[in-house]
Amino acid sequence: MSSSKDIEEGTALTPRYDANGLVTAVVTDAAGGDVLMVAHMNAEALQKTIATGEAWYFSRSRKALWKKGETSGHVQRVVELRIDCDQDAVWLRVEQMGGGACHTGRRSCFYRTVPLKQTGAVKLEFAAGKAFDPAKVYRKP
Amino acid sequence: MSSSKDIEEGTALTPRYDANGLVTAVVTDAAGGDVLMVAHMNAEALQKTIATGEAWYFSRSRKALWKKGETSGHVQRVVELRIDCDQDAVWLRVEQMGGGACHTGRRSCFYRTVPLKQTGAVKLEFAAGKAFDPAKVYRKP
Repeated sequence: MSSSKDIEEGTALTPRYDANGLVTAVVTDAAGGDVLMVAHMNAEALQKTIATGEAWYFSRSRKALWKKGETSGHVQRVVELRIDCDQDAVWLRVEQMGGGACHTGRRSCFYRTVPLKQTGAVKLEFAAGKAFDPAKVYRKP
Repeated sequence: MSSSKDIEEGTALTPRYDANGLVTAVVTDAAGGDVLMVAHMNAEALQKTIATGEAWYFSRSRKALWKKGETSGHVQRVVELRIDCDQDAVWLRVEQMGGGACHTGRRSCFYRTVPLKQTGAVKLEFAAGKAFDPAKVYRKP
C-alpha cells in the first residue's frame, strides 16, 4: 500500500483504480488543445497504451477492452501521457486520426455549450457541426 | 426517460448521473489549454456552477459539496461550460485564480508524465514544479 506522499510525489506508476478497476482518461487534441473525449481505462488498457503509444480504453457499457479507431479507423496516436496527483486519472494529448473522436460525427464529444448565469430553463447551444458521417465510418461489416 | 437521440442531438440539459449521482468534470486552463484537474459534480454542484459562473464540485471522499477556492482562495471563474454527447461529463474552461488548481502546490494536477513505448518498469517524470506553497494556502484556521 503506497502512502499519499508516495502516490503524489513519487516516480512509481501506482494507479488507483476505482471499485470497477478503472481510472478516468481525459483526451485532448495535441494540435488545438480542445478536450476531445472522456473515457476509462483498466490496467490492461493503460498497459497497452503505454506499450504501443496508441490509445486503448475499457468500455463500461460493453465491458470490453477496445482500441480507439478499431472500427472507425480514427486511431489516436498519443503524443504525451500524464497522470494526476492521486493517480486516479490520466491525460492523453493525442494526434487524432480521421475526422474526429465522437461517435456522433463531431471532432470532439463536447460540441454543446451550457449557457452560464441564466435564469430559467437551460438551453444547450451547438458549438460545432459534424466533421464526418458516422453512418459511413461505423458501418456494420 | 430521454432517448439516445434526444440526449445527443437535443438542446435540453439532461445529465446522466452515475450510481453515485455524479458526472465527471474536466477542467482546463482557458489561457494555456492545459488540463488543470478532474473532479466530479452532483446536480447541486452543476446548478451552482451554471448559476454563479464559478466552479462548484462534489467531493467523493468528504461526501460534500465544495466551492473550488473556498479554503485556498484559488477560485475558478468559468469562461465556458460544455457537455459531452451522452451528457455524463462536462468540460469547464476556467480562469484559475491564485497559484494553481492542485492541492500539492502545482498549477495542474497533471504534473508527471508517463514515458511511452518503454520496456521494463515505468518511471514517472516530473513536468512541472510547484507554483505555490500548499502549507500556506491550505493552513488550518
